[in-house]
Amino acid sequence: MNFREKLDLVVTRNNSLVCVGLDSEIAKMPPHIQSMEDPQFEFNKSIIDATADLVCAYKPNIAFYELFGARGITSLLKTIEYIPKNIPIVLDAKRGDIGDTSYMYAKSYFETFGVDAVTIHGYMGSDTVAPFMKYEDKAIFVLVKTSNPSAVEFEDMELKDGKKLYIKVAEKIAEWNELYPGLCGTVVGATFPADLKPIRVILPDVPFLVPGLGKQGGDTEQTVLNGMDARGRGLLINSARAIIFAGNGLDFAQKAREETLKLRDKINQYRKG
Amino acid sequence: MNFREKLDLVVTRNNSLVCVGLDSEIAKMPPHIQSMEDPQFEFNKSIIDATADLVCAYKPNIAFYELFGARGITSLLKTIEYIPKNIPIVLDAKRGDIGDTSYMYAKSYFETFGVDAVTIHGYMGSDTVAPFMKYEDKAIFVLVKTSNPSAVEFEDMELKDGKKLYIKVAEKIAEWNELYPGLCGTVVGATFPADLKPIRVILPDVPFLVPGLGKQGGDTEQTVLNGMDARGRGLLINSARAIIFAGNGLDFAQKAREETLKLRDKINQYRKG
Repeated sequence: MNFREKLDLVVTRNNSLVCVGLDSEIAKMPPHIQSMEDPQFEFNKSIIDATADLVCAYKPNIAFYELFGARGITSLLKTIEYIPKNIPIVLDAKRGDIGDTSYMYAKSYFETFGVDAVTIHGYMGSDTVAPFMKYEDKAIFVLVKTSNPSAVEFEDMELKDGKKLYIKVAEKIAEWNELYPGLCGTVVGATFPADLKPIRVILPDVPFLVPGLGKQGGDTEQTVLNGMDARGRGLLINSARAIIFAGNGLDFAQKAREETLKLRDKINQYRKG
Repeated sequence: MNFREKLDLVVTRNNSLVCVGLDSEIAKMPPHIQSMEDPQFEFNKSIIDATADLVCAYKPNIAFYELFGARGITSLLKTIEYIPKNIPIVLDAKRGDIGDTSYMYAKSYFETFGVDAVTIHGYMGSDTVAPFMKYEDKAIFVLVKTSNPSAVEFEDMELKDGKKLYIKVAEKIAEWNELYPGLCGTVVGATFPADLKPIRVILPDVPFLVPGLGKQGGDTEQTVLNGMDARGRGLLINSARAIIFAGNGLDFAQKAREETLKLRDKINQYRKG
């Protein structure tokens, strides 16, 4: 079963386009979790138990684990191991390197770490992407238009032919998907919801990983209407802090569940519209 | 002492612009090292002992360590700890993320890992860079023109004003260095030595990290002549495989020393010319 099939099954089963971001910063966790031996794993375990029937994917960002060196990587690997096997895991690592090194990254994440997909910087071109494409049941999500304010500085630069740089990246992803059918997704931020539309035209059946909806302030309605594919799917709408840190007491996982449910239903309302 | 001062001292002391890339792939190590308990650290230790008086920096690429999960990160941290404190360490991680996450990466590498500099993807703009700039004695090297064949796909794209994308990135680095004096360096591949010249014009006193000279086939003379600053410095010319895997026997570290010496002297010949 390839990545898109795995994703499709869970979208149907959980009736959800919500991806929960496991940006598990220890300082923001409830005090009773912070004092445990492996707070990142214990926190994630509770969040996963409380949300696994409501999500289409989990997205840990490796930065929050690397901060603790080898111990953090162990917490991340335990988290990956704990996530139910039928839910796709997108490792947010934003890697991009020359071919030989990219091969090491692909091997790291798809074999050692065992995730289903990785986020990728496309700046260095096809060499960066090719080694990941040898894993036919996996996927990558290439950064197209990111959710941060300064995304406009380079990504919106106008090229000689009048197209913006992020449009060129989207067009390149279309080429890569010709070569490696179904293996490339994109990252498009919900903070620039109008930009989802032209990217969806270029990439009609590609999954979009969409950060920026929660604390970053993206608009749900516009994101769904502009971003969904012809089947009312094709989006992994990520929310991290707004869900995982919704509560700070003993009931933090229950609060996370409530926020996930709320976001899922809000998104689904526009999917049906 | 800031990064540039630290680099300058070691360039003088070792009369060297050679940066040794610690891309320490276990499968390529001599058999007697492969059978040790921590081959990556043992290998690096021998390479460092044999070359520390001949280099201006070491550059481990994190991909080669992440492959082994927590164990690999431990080998990397032990290596960083082992490198003499007066030699700058550039962690080749090519990170780039939104502000909050970038802050985590900066904290990871400059505090937990304790390196002097990190390589960075600039695609997402200033937000990516700003958190690293709070560390005034550290530095980042932003990817401008990379050494891989497909670098031309995006990096050479021509913009509306006739400039190439990599030139725009170099100009942005100049802006960042106005805001954060001396903290931004660049990555420019030796495989496109002609491109070093216009970048040096835009960034007259910025250190260039230059990969691609060894196995990737870059030209030493052109790299040095086009890339050096007015003082005959400003380059960290990286060689990884051609040095660290020069030998495969008990004398591998001696072979690495010989290759480092050869490269140092070859570079210096053009610095003086």
